[in-house]
Amino acid sequence: MSVVETAGQVLRDGAFGHATALSCRECGHQVALGPFYACPECFGPLEISYDFPAVTREEIEAGPANIWRYKALLPVPSDIELSPNMEPGFTRLLKAHNLGRELGIDNLWVKDDSTNPTNSFKDRVVACALSAATELHAKVFACPSTGNLANAVAAAGARAGIKTMVFIPANLEKPKQVNSAIYTDSLVAVNGNYDDVNKLASEIAGEEEGWAFVNVNVRPYYAEGSKTLGYEIAEQLGWRLPDQVVIPVASGSQLTKVHKAFQELIKLGLVEDKKYKIYGAQATGCGPVATAFKAGVDAIRPVKPDTIAKSLAIGNPADGIYVLDICRETGGAVEEVTDDEIRDGIVLLARTEGIFTETAGGTTTAVLKKLVETGQLDTSLETVFINTGHGLKTLDAIADKVGAAATIDPSYDAFKASGLI
Amino acid sequence: MSVVETAGQVLRDGAFGHATALSCRECGHQVALGPFYACPECFGPLEISYDFPAVTREEIEAGPANIWRYKALLPVPSDIELSPNMEPGFTRLLKAHNLGRELGIDNLWVKDDSTNPTNSFKDRVVACALSAATELHAKVFACPSTGNLANAVAAAGARAGIKTMVFIPANLEKPKQVNSAIYTDSLVAVNGNYDDVNKLASEIAGEEEGWAFVNVNVRPYYAEGSKTLGYEIAEQLGWRLPDQVVIPVASGSQLTKVHKAFQELIKLGLVEDKKYKIYGAQATGCGPVATAFKAGVDAIRPVKPDTIAKSLAIGNPADGIYVLDICRETGGAVEEVTDDEIRDGIVLLARTEGIFTETAGGTTTAVLKKLVETGQLDTSLETVFINTGHGLKTLDAIADKVGAAATIDPSYDAFKASGLI
Repeated sequence: MSVVETAGQVLRDGAFGHATALSCRECGHQVALGPFYACPECFGPLEISYDFPAVTREEIEAGPANIWRYKALLPVPSDIELSPNMEPGFTRLLKAHNLGRELGIDNLWVKDDSTNPTNSFKDRVVACALSAATELHAKVFACPSTGNLANAVAAAGARAGIKTMVFIPANLEKPKQVNSAIYTDSLVAVNGNYDDVNKLASEIAGEEEGWAFVNVNVRPYYAEGSKTLGYEIAEQLGWRLPDQVVIPVASGSQLTKVHKAFQELIKLGLVEDKKYKIYGAQATGCGPVATAFKAGVDAIRPVKPDTIAKSLAIGNPADGIYVLDICRETGGAVEEVTDDEIRDGIVLLARTEGIFTETAGGTTTAVLKKLVETGQLDTSLETVFINTGHGLKTLDAIADKVGAAATIDPSYDAFKASGLI
Repeated sequence: MSVVETAGQVLRDGAFGHATALSCRECGHQVALGPFYACPECFGPLEISYDFPAVTREEIEAGPANIWRYKALLPVPSDIELSPNMEPGFTRLLKAHNLGRELGIDNLWVKDDSTNPTNSFKDRVVACALSAATELHAKVFACPSTGNLANAVAAAGARAGIKTMVFIPANLEKPKQVNSAIYTDSLVAVNGNYDDVNKLASEIAGEEEGWAFVNVNVRPYYAEGSKTLGYEIAEQLGWRLPDQVVIPVASGSQLTKVHKAFQELIKLGLVEDKKYKIYGAQATGCGPVATAFKAGVDAIRPVKPDTIAKSLAIGNPADGIYVLDICRETGGAVEEVTDDEIRDGIVLLARTEGIFTETAGGTTTAVLKKLVETGQLDTSLETVFINTGHGLKTLDAIADKVGAAATIDPSYDAFKASGLI
């Protein structure tokens, strides 16, 4: 590769690793790698294209215990480890013995991303966005968000030492503000809802030079970070693909990227080619993709979100149509569950596997249960579901559901009399 | 090894790995491995003795990305991975470029245990206690606690499918109760303070057969889990010891175990023998070890804790005298900081390295700063400090310290007028 110029900037050799271009997912038109996200021909979404070298399992296994072990498959430079970053990923893939028994699934695994640096999968995508921002010489690293993304961007920006601005709705609860404000003195509260904040972000991205909004103008790089969930699942299973995967759907990006990751691993010969089914999980209060799936239609009708699963509350999911395609093609499904089922899902996962998930993970757990109950999931097949975030961030959702079993006086006699044993 | 009988129970071959006995740290008297914690001769604390086999770096590196990669050096069976457990450890060792620059330390690292399964180092020790409880055929897995330990025990017990009872003070704040209650329906609220809860636990341990209280009667096994912090630091530095380590001191166990781990690695030839200094970090509101260190005395005078660093608030630390010995012998120190310094420490670590720590980590960060300012730490030497837990659990401590930089209307003009850029 040689030095290329994009958006008026000189990029260093290998700035984006083995990525070769941005390709439109709709019309296939290609543009040079740069801070672009929409096709200039048809306004379709741009996605990274690569020319991968031969990559071996051994090379990957010799890498660090974080997402950079897959750096050859990401749009990042080969010296990515040298740039201060959060070093996310390579989280636990746990055999879910108890939950499997409870649900009647023979062979169940949970991929637990709640132990990422800021306790959600967002650390993966933000790490890739940060690399793109750095390579594109961005002056400001920014995002609009109400939760996990804000935490991840604020933390990664602090560690990288890049100017960071995080835009949140002004009425966001104080604890959630603290989770981001702790990392940055540039948290900006905006009078309005998340849509207003998002619109402001796009406006700033259009007006200001050198701003990298992780989920706007460097979104193609950002989104690639979710592929690492797929790579890790395959590697941690011993370099093979599972039969079924259940993934929460907000924008839908994560689900499409796990599929992309599996396909890449097959093409690179790192896993055996096999059929697998992909399932999407949504909340009934924001289930536009599930609704379209069940209706058997291709068009997704936007909804106004009304669910406790705030991190899944995207009423008009950008990648919804791709989620539909993938779930239909692979023989999976998209299912939705009510807020009560989500709360039950949170408690179920904690009580069976010792994992405290946020509402998004409660949604995925509850959808897994519903897929079994409705006969949509084959309980004899190896199944993985993804927990994307931590329950400490959404304590309110279950604060009234759990508590002490008894209150006793501090004596052995009082304990014996309590009936607890 | 052959099958041994202890406390009336038949243990399976290799139940405790290469551990050979429980040895009194005071008089050296040895007893058979079992649910014992105090020397029958002198009431001194019992500690695990081993007969280690030859262990190579390669064997360890080929192990899983959790504490079981060091299973040959822990009192656990060789098939420990087969028992459902939290799979904690192998957390990030991050180069702290920004904080190092801020404090004037050339070569600074932070070992970040906030990304453990329940977000504190307690997952390490509880995993070892759980193994001991299982091998000893305990009926109930239990602890008295107000925080991190309760979370870790409740989660590990749920995943292991063992009956679990967690005792907390009844006046513990609701969010902290939820962090444990989410995992178990056997959370017991006790009318009284932590001392009362602790006393009740000892009473139950004495009265009931088959209860494993992690920090009481299986404490020797439990405490060994902290060695893995030392092993990981050495391995992640490339199989060498740092020059200086700063470690928070509650009971003092963690500090003594990191020292023990370093000594074991030297004896096993896994790292080069070298001098290193160990420093202890306490809060001024509960600094009995720091007080004794500064006074140059051997006896530790118990205090009544009064600090925001609740997880360090042990007024009569069991391992305090060993901490004094180690810090003096290695040329380190024990230092303390005020609650205001602790709060500043939390913000400093977040703003420089993107790590949101709890009050204990704020204490360690602030002590690190103070050690530099008072000339007690050599800023030219490679230094590691340990972050033991997550700030999401102690939000209240800094909720009034951080927040939005500005509140604006949702327009580009309003943003421009805000003076933020």
